[in-house]
Amino acid sequence: MSELRQNLVNKEWVIIATERAKRPEDFIKPVKLDEPVKPEYSPKCPFCPGNESQTPPEILRIDDDKGDWLARVVPNRFAALSPDCDPTRTINGLQRGIQGFGYHDVVVESRLHNTTTALLPVSQVERILELYRERYLQLQKDPRVAAVIIFKNHGEAAGTSLEHPHSQIVATPVIPQSMRNRIEESTRYYDDEGQCVVCKVMNEEIREGRRMVAETEHFAAFVPFAAETPFHTWIVPKTHRSHYLLMSDEELHDLAGILKTVLGKLYYGLNNPDFNYLLRVAPWDDMDSRGLHWYITVILRLNKVAGFELGSGIVINTSLPEDNARFLREVQLPND
Amino acid sequence: MSELRQNLVNKEWVIIATERAKRPEDFIKPVKLDEPVKPEYSPKCPFCPGNESQTPPEILRIDDDKGDWLARVVPNRFAALSPDCDPTRTINGLQRGIQGFGYHDVVVESRLHNTTTALLPVSQVERILELYRERYLQLQKDPRVAAVIIFKNHGEAAGTSLEHPHSQIVATPVIPQSMRNRIEESTRYYDDEGQCVVCKVMNEEIREGRRMVAETEHFAAFVPFAAETPFHTWIVPKTHRSHYLLMSDEELHDLAGILKTVLGKLYYGLNNPDFNYLLRVAPWDDMDSRGLHWYITVILRLNKVAGFELGSGIVINTSLPEDNARFLREVQLPND
Repeated sequence: MSELRQNLVNKEWVIIATERAKRPEDFIKPVKLDEPVKPEYSPKCPFCPGNESQTPPEILRIDDDKGDWLARVVPNRFAALSPDCDPTRTINGLQRGIQGFGYHDVVVESRLHNTTTALLPVSQVERILELYRERYLQLQKDPRVAAVIIFKNHGEAAGTSLEHPHSQIVATPVIPQSMRNRIEESTRYYDDEGQCVVCKVMNEEIREGRRMVAETEHFAAFVPFAAETPFHTWIVPKTHRSHYLLMSDEELHDLAGILKTVLGKLYYGLNNPDFNYLLRVAPWDDMDSRGLHWYITVILRLNKVAGFELGSGIVINTSLPEDNARFLREVQLPND
Repeated sequence: MSELRQNLVNKEWVIIATERAKRPEDFIKPVKLDEPVKPEYSPKCPFCPGNESQTPPEILRIDDDKGDWLARVVPNRFAALSPDCDPTRTINGLQRGIQGFGYHDVVVESRLHNTTTALLPVSQVERILELYRERYLQLQKDPRVAAVIIFKNHGEAAGTSLEHPHSQIVATPVIPQSMRNRIEESTRYYDDEGQCVVCKVMNEEIREGRRMVAETEHFAAFVPFAAETPFHTWIVPKTHRSHYLLMSDEELHDLAGILKTVLGKLYYGLNNPDFNYLLRVAPWDDMDSRGLHWYITVILRLNKVAGFELGSGIVINTSLPEDNARFLREVQLPND
C-alpha cells in the first residue's frame, strides 16, 4: 500500500511508494573505477585561479590576507537574462512578454577545481553564504528586480557539467508563479491559524524527531514528511524570518556549519550524489511578512519525471522519509 | 537578448533564449547505427499477444472480427496506487495523509511490439482514444476518485523503458495542486473577461498562423507562444468543451487523425524523439465549466531541469516557438 502525503507549505501531494520503497542503501551512487581523478587545477577552467580573464568582469570577491581571492562572484558567460534592457511588459493581444531583463551570476566557491561544499572548511562555506547575502543586497537595489533565485547545481543529473564548485544567482523581472503560490498558501495559513506554517512544521519535526537529520543552535535540518524525492532535506532557521537577508552574522556562521554537515552526510553516505540546493525566500517586497519563513531545500536528483508528474504535479517518492532521515543521522562525518 | 513570455492558461513565465536559440535541426535525434532492430514480437514482453497472462486481469478491450484484441486496458503490475483501500484523509497534527487509494492502468496500444502512435493507422489511434474515454467513464463512477490523469511516456528521457507502445491512466483521490491552479486561473480569466482563455488563445493562434502546426475541422495544433520546451505542441478542440468525455464521435475520429499527424511530424522530423503527451481536462466535478477547455499537450524532453527551474518554476526554452512550428509544418508525412 502506498501513501499520499501533503506538503502543507505549498499544498502539493506526494505519493510515497511505501510498499515498493527502496532501502536508503539502494541510492548509494555506484563507484566508477575508471573515472579519472579530478585535478586541483584545470587550465581550461574559467573558474580556476589564473584564468580570471576568461570570465566577465568580477562583481564581488572575498580575499585572503595576501590579496588572493578565496571566493568570487562573476557574471555568467552564458547568461539567460541581461541587465542591459528594459523590462517593461509588452501586451500584444493575448501575448504577454518582457524583454529578457535580469541578472545571472556565478559564485565561484573555491580556488580548488576538484572540491565540493561537503569538503570545504566551514569558514569557506561561510564566505559563500556571505557572498549570497552581499550580492542579494546589491540586486535588490535595482527596482526592476522582482525576485532573486539562489541555487547550486552539483553533478550532471542536477543540470551542470562544470566541475569547478560554483553556485548561481538569478534575478528576474517577475515573481515566478510557483513563488506566488507559496506566498498565497503561506499567507492563507497565517491568516487562518495565526502562525507561520514553517515554524509549526519545524517545531513538530524537532519534537517528533523521526525525520531529523541534524540540529544546531539556530537551525534544524530534516527530511520533510511529504518529501518529494529520496533524501530531500530542508534546513530551516529556528527564528522566524521571512528572508535570508535578515539573518544575524551568528546565524550565518551556524548555517555554514549545518549546510556542510547535511551535504557531508549526503556526500559520505551516498557517494557524492548529484543534487541541487536552493534558497526559498520571500520576494524583497514581502520582506517583513509574518507568514513567510525562509529555508534551504536540498533536492537529490534520483527520481524520474514522466507523464504522470508532468500532468499532475504529483511526484512519486520511492523511499521513506523516516528511513532516509535515520540513514543520514547515522552517517559519521570525518573530523576536519 | 532573451525574452520572457507568459502562458496565460497557468500564468507561468518562460524564458525564450532567443539569442542563443538552437535551430530546429539541432534537435534531431542522432541516428544510432549500432542499435538493434526491434522485433515485432518479444517473448518477454507482457504486452505482446500470447503473453496476456503476464498482466493482471484485463479491464477493457477492443476486438477485431475474429475476436483477437486490437487494444486493451489492464491494471499496471507496478501500480503506484490501489483501489483496495480507504481514501479517508488522516490528519495527525500537521501531517495530512491519505492511504494510497487510486487506479493505475495501462493501455496497450497495439499488438505490435515495435511500433508507435505515429506509425499506427488512424483507425488504431481512434481505438486508443476510445479506450481512454471508456475507461474514464468507468473510473468517474467511483466517488472516491477526484481526478484522472491520462498520459503517454515514449522513450527513456520521457520516463519509460518499456518498448511496447502503451499509455497510462491514473485516478487519484485528490485534485493535484497544479490542476487546482489551472482551474483557478482559468476561472478568474472567465470571470474577468467573460470568455474562455483557451478559446481566445486558440483563435488568436489560428488567425496569426505563425505557430500553427496542423489544423482539421475540429482541432487546431500549435506551438504555444510561451512554449516550455522545444516543439511543445497543444492540440486544442475548436469547440469549447471542458472535458474529453464531452467530445462527439466525429470529433474523436478527427482527433485521432491530428494526433497521428502531430506525432508523425515529430517522428519523421526529429527522428523519433522521446516525448510525453497528456490530456489536460477539468476534474469530473467541473465537467460543465464554461471557463475550462480541455486539450492535449505534447512535451518533448529536450531541456535540462536544474536548480533555477526547481527554484522558480520558470523554464528556459532554447528554441523559438515560431521556428519550431514552421519546421513541423514543413515536415512531409508519408502517405499511408
